[in-house]
Amino acid sequence: MSDDHLHIPVDAAFSRRVPIHDDRERLVCDSCEYVIYENPKIVVGVVATWQGKILLVKRAIEPRKGFWTLPAGYLELNESAEDGACREAWEEARAKLVINQVMAVYSIPRISQIQIIYRAALTTPDIGPGPESQEVGLFTWQDIPWDQIAFPSVHWALRQYDQIKNQKAFPSFTNPTGEGEVI
Amino acid sequence: MSDDHLHIPVDAAFSRRVPIHDDRERLVCDSCEYVIYENPKIVVGVVATWQGKILLVKRAIEPRKGFWTLPAGYLELNESAEDGACREAWEEARAKLVINQVMAVYSIPRISQIQIIYRAALTTPDIGPGPESQEVGLFTWQDIPWDQIAFPSVHWALRQYDQIKNQKAFPSFTNPTGEGEVI
Ligand SMILES: [Zn+2]
Ligand SMILES: [Zn+2]
Repeated sequence: MSDDHLHIPVDAAFSRRVPIHDDRERLVCDSCEYVIYENPKIVVGVVATWQGKILLVKRAIEPRKGFWTLPAGYLELNESAEDGACREAWEEARAKLVINQVMAVYSIPRISQIQIIYRAALTTPDIGPGPESQEVGLFTWQDIPWDQIAFPSVHWALRQYDQIKNQKAFPSFTNPTGEGEVI
Repeated sequence: MSDDHLHIPVDAAFSRRVPIHDDRERLVCDSCEYVIYENPKIVVGVVATWQGKILLVKRAIEPRKGFWTLPAGYLELNESAEDGACREAWEEARAKLVINQVMAVYSIPRISQIQIIYRAALTTPDIGPGPESQEVGLFTWQDIPWDQIAFPSVHWALRQYDQIKNQKAFPSFTNPTGEGEVI
């Protein structure tokens, strides 16, 4: 499986067909047989806190515009997962933070998505909405807008964070049992 | 960002250009402006043991043909990370196993790769080479072929596994400090 996907010529055209030596339809270059593999996507995000309060952002874009979520987004090419999580926290909440440890690895196979969520600490309470956020806030547990949460995995991460918030180190979580769980 | 990449028409042709409302070159459908995002890839793998011995496979394919590695490979579409890790262990080593917990999440940004490694237990010592393996084996620590290991991250995973092999639960690892580490 080639890792040369950054070297596709600018004028290449691709068609969906079964490449040589393969058994599935792929996106194949019409002139050189280069194959683009369609892969699951990686979302990186954080449960980040300041003095026990949890950072949430209100989405300014679809899907789930107007609902609250954790800072998270797609990992980019040539980016570490930790860098991606920090970048998203900056882009969405103008938050600066220090990653503490992997909090959870979730699988959402229906949409071919893996979510890697870190526990993190804000280094300053100065936050503000980025272009994809309507609003940002630091919430105590009881002030979290539970009926306006954007995605099920945000519920998972918040509940799991609450279990380990006072632990110095902890085994990372996966999908809660019964919710898209596989093991 | 669309998740409709499974619905690309069979006859679509794609060119590399800057799509509407974007600022980077992407692969864009010539007829409908559908964008294929090129994303980092997810590798899923296991440190799997039977009575304290670690499962390794000798690669029958490039890169690093003839070198030893942990069962691991690219996550497929619509697959959970745990299912993918078990599938790779079956494909490469005919191994049946039970996932225990996330052992490590590594970032290899140079090749846009995230590796999710689980600790696992073989449910039977019956193993054998799959089509992409020359050989498989269960190794004690001192019998591991240390000078014939395929990739740096296999060294990372083996060393980190050794640190936690007697622990019931443990915080998951990331890249070892100084080796592509970012935090
Ligand atoms: Zn080509
Ligand atoms: Zn189209």
